[in-house]
Amino acid sequence: MNAVRIGLLGLGTVGGGTLELLARNGDEIARRAGRPIRVTHASVRDAGRPRGPQAANVQLLADPFELVHHPQIDIVAELIGGIEPARALVLAAINAGKHVVTANKALIAHHGNEIFEAARRAGVAVGFEAAVAGGIPIIKTLREGLAGNRIQGLAGIINGTSNYILTQMRDAGLDFATALADAQRLGYAEADPSFDIDGVDAAHKLSILAAIAFGMPLCFDQVHVEGIRGLSAMDVDYAGQLGYRLKLLGIARRTERGVQLRVHPTLLPQRHLLAQVDGVINAVLVDSDALGQSLYYGAGAGAGPTASAVVADLIDIARALTIDPEHRVPYLAFHHDRLQALPILPIDAVETAFYLRLTALDRPGVLADVTRILADQHISIEAILQKEPPPGESHVAVILLTHTVRERAVREAIARIEALPSIDGRVVSLRLDHLEH
Amino acid sequence: MNAVRIGLLGLGTVGGGTLELLARNGDEIARRAGRPIRVTHASVRDAGRPRGPQAANVQLLADPFELVHHPQIDIVAELIGGIEPARALVLAAINAGKHVVTANKALIAHHGNEIFEAARRAGVAVGFEAAVAGGIPIIKTLREGLAGNRIQGLAGIINGTSNYILTQMRDAGLDFATALADAQRLGYAEADPSFDIDGVDAAHKLSILAAIAFGMPLCFDQVHVEGIRGLSAMDVDYAGQLGYRLKLLGIARRTERGVQLRVHPTLLPQRHLLAQVDGVINAVLVDSDALGQSLYYGAGAGAGPTASAVVADLIDIARALTIDPEHRVPYLAFHHDRLQALPILPIDAVETAFYLRLTALDRPGVLADVTRILADQHISIEAILQKEPPPGESHVAVILLTHTVRERAVREAIARIEALPSIDGRVVSLRLDHLEH
Ligand SMILES: NC(=O)c1ccc[n+]([C@@H]2O[C@H](COP(=O)([O-])OP(=O)(O)OC[C@H]3O[C@@H](n4cnc5c(N)ncnc54)[C@H](OP(=O)(O)O)[C@@H]3O)[C@@H](O)[C@H]2O)c1
Ligand SMILES: NC(=O)c1ccc[n+]([C@@H]2O[C@H](COP(=O)([O-])OP(=O)(O)OC[C@H]3O[C@@H](n4cnc5c(N)ncnc54)[C@H](OP(=O)(O)O)[C@@H]3O)[C@@H](O)[C@H]2O)c1
Repeated sequence: MNAVRIGLLGLGTVGGGTLELLARNGDEIARRAGRPIRVTHASVRDAGRPRGPQAANVQLLADPFELVHHPQIDIVAELIGGIEPARALVLAAINAGKHVVTANKALIAHHGNEIFEAARRAGVAVGFEAAVAGGIPIIKTLREGLAGNRIQGLAGIINGTSNYILTQMRDAGLDFATALADAQRLGYAEADPSFDIDGVDAAHKLSILAAIAFGMPLCFDQVHVEGIRGLSAMDVDYAGQLGYRLKLLGIARRTERGVQLRVHPTLLPQRHLLAQVDGVINAVLVDSDALGQSLYYGAGAGAGPTASAVVADLIDIARALTIDPEHRVPYLAFHHDRLQALPILPIDAVETAFYLRLTALDRPGVLADVTRILADQHISIEAILQKEPPPGESHVAVILLTHTVRERAVREAIARIEALPSIDGRVVSLRLDHLEH
Repeated sequence: MNAVRIGLLGLGTVGGGTLELLARNGDEIARRAGRPIRVTHASVRDAGRPRGPQAANVQLLADPFELVHHPQIDIVAELIGGIEPARALVLAAINAGKHVVTANKALIAHHGNEIFEAARRAGVAVGFEAAVAGGIPIIKTLREGLAGNRIQGLAGIINGTSNYILTQMRDAGLDFATALADAQRLGYAEADPSFDIDGVDAAHKLSILAAIAFGMPLCFDQVHVEGIRGLSAMDVDYAGQLGYRLKLLGIARRTERGVQLRVHPTLLPQRHLLAQVDGVINAVLVDSDALGQSLYYGAGAGAGPTASAVVADLIDIARALTIDPEHRVPYLAFHHDRLQALPILPIDAVETAFYLRLTALDRPGVLADVTRILADQHISIEAILQKEPPPGESHVAVILLTHTVRERAVREAIARIEALPSIDGRVVSLRLDHLEH
């Protein structure tokens, strides 16, 4: 059968990895796809830079818009990143009748609704497996593997950079700044790491997973986002002493009152499977009614893993080239006219347990004041850890773990506790989740 | 769009679960599949038995062959089990132009090559996601999610009954017979548990996974199979003392000399992810060149999880009803004329590490005799654990962990060790694997 012809926008980490993988496994891929998949054209920013031996048979086009309109290309893979010109190129490709594959989570999170609508009108496929959790086929799993289930929730470690930093803080006892600098030195964090450590990248991915899981349009703007920048080594350590590990989780959960969508550092019981996921690895835990809890674990970034997902999408599209568009797997798992905008619960109304750390004067009665405030707010306490004050110090650290409680009640309690004269500075609060339901 | 009409062969655990799931999640399923999926007909052995409220709208046919030929059925789901009449019914359905879904691992392992050939000629789809690892979409993952990868190997806990028994032996210190009786009482093991505890069920599943992963025809007969029936509580305990857990693993691995295909109890380092998989849960670890190691974890049996996989297959087929058969995902991942019969390595030639337990006279020189025999066979020792003899006992248990070695060398060493006058009875040998490569 004729080769399927791919145009690559971008030959960086992911684009270069995709070119390499298609060449290296070309024979096995053709045995699976039923026909060869060949990169015929590419476009990059700097056409002068050498691109390695695999690029020898690829025609470089100076203008990426020429590529997306090229009559001899069947599928365009957008591996540039960022919003523009990626968005304009993807839309142009779609309007030119090309199928599209992208690894761009920011683009899908912000403009997915628009892109899928354009693609539906044009009758083309859009693959974005590489946008979430690298090579783990989590989009396919939610969209197809669990298609018979009502998905109740999911929780994921979906940003490898943050997970690497948190793992280093725990294992090597590093503070945040040192762990970040290490990650940058090793290439696990970018020069500007904000998207990763502030939770934005995880929120992009979470909004994609939630749309597919629950059958609703993308709603990145409604994700509650907190990153790991403010975390102190002390809290990582105390969490460990109490039997917990700190992970940056993306959590999406259906509740009767609305959908929870949140990214924040979370204490997880040490024995929980997600707590065992260390370093740059990603993992997603899914709760669904027929299957129960299932977990998907693997490399979340890097040239090979991300190319693995890009190529899987290319093969899917190659296989389905003759399918009537109405019968394709819907972009967001549910048919476009059957998506439902579900109410998103404001973080104030979310219920979780909490870890609270206070710095208190070491004298009788202080704990009584604190626990009275908590009782007033109907917050019950699961555990208290009070540290000995260092010699000569008048203040001690007190750590409280609460039972599940509505967030607003905790915020009010914290404000009152911080106002106590016996309490020094801010109360540190972190959410704690057993990921049961 | 018109409903897709399903005929169910069997309304037992899986058939009943499938009927229930399609009814309960009918709305979400139609939103995903683009059309309703409806069970219109069923056939069972005992037509007199009551089948619950969901069966009220299903027409029961006394003759299952009438069902597979019924002109108003689009997809036949074979959920009877066993070889006959399941095989005859599946072939009849295929020859009548019906798409088929089955949960029957024994049938696919033994007759898959014949079934897929018939289906290819008839141009129909055959889904068998439910045949391996229950609701975990591992077939889809290997066949589609990792389609860009060269898969080097996989290792799985793919029999929940055995894993439950091994977990109980470890956690509750039970012997094998008691743990088996417990599992039977709780419904985790059948009255005749041989397929599960002798490794046959795991071997059925492993042969399916290996075919899909490596692109070769099914070859169940060439799987090396050992079960857990002979395991002693003592070895579970010693393994724990040495930092290992015993798991019944199915392992498929490409090596330069041939493909390893084996099911046997295996010592795994306690910290390995697969070692954490307890109870009736299944998990599969996949090694592939682009993604690296990835893991898939979830419920491997039961009405809900198995129905989850059956329904996912039904939805896939419903979506693809209009696709040209040449463009469907191939049954065994690779196109039928691109499968390659790979040489399977005989177990004698497989290389792994070993756990050896001997019962030796407690006197000087015995260990020297044993280690000399091992040295003669070029077997190097990683660790030795020698227990104190109980008071008044003349024999001690000695446990040796070897480095990786060819199996034949170990068998020869064991024969020589057993012939030593200072050694009492048989040497217990178990394979040990770090699942790296
Ligand atoms: N890296 C990962 O591990 C990873 C994982 C998952 C998803 N992703 C996503 O994959 C996408 C690509 O990431 P990456 O890491 O591969 O980025 P990268 O290494 O920076 O590569 C970007 C590529 O795009 C090219 N490019 C930039 N602007 C262009 C323009 N206007 N026209 C044509 N080409 C242009 C660059 O050309 P030059 O080579 O000439 O500079 C480069 O080849 C992003 O959306 C990212 O979020 C990446
Ligand atoms: N159970 C699990 O957790 C699980 C998990 C994975 C895969 N599977 C596989 O799923 C398949 C079904 O297993 P199951 O546990 O559901 O078995 P089951 O509970 O014993 O149900 C078997 C069904 O088949 C019917 N049946 C038997 N012989 C028949 C015949 N000649 N014609 C028509 N119907 C016939 C039975 O009818 P009656 O109801 O009248 O007896 C019953 O409804 C097997 O291949 C099994 O290996 C099961």
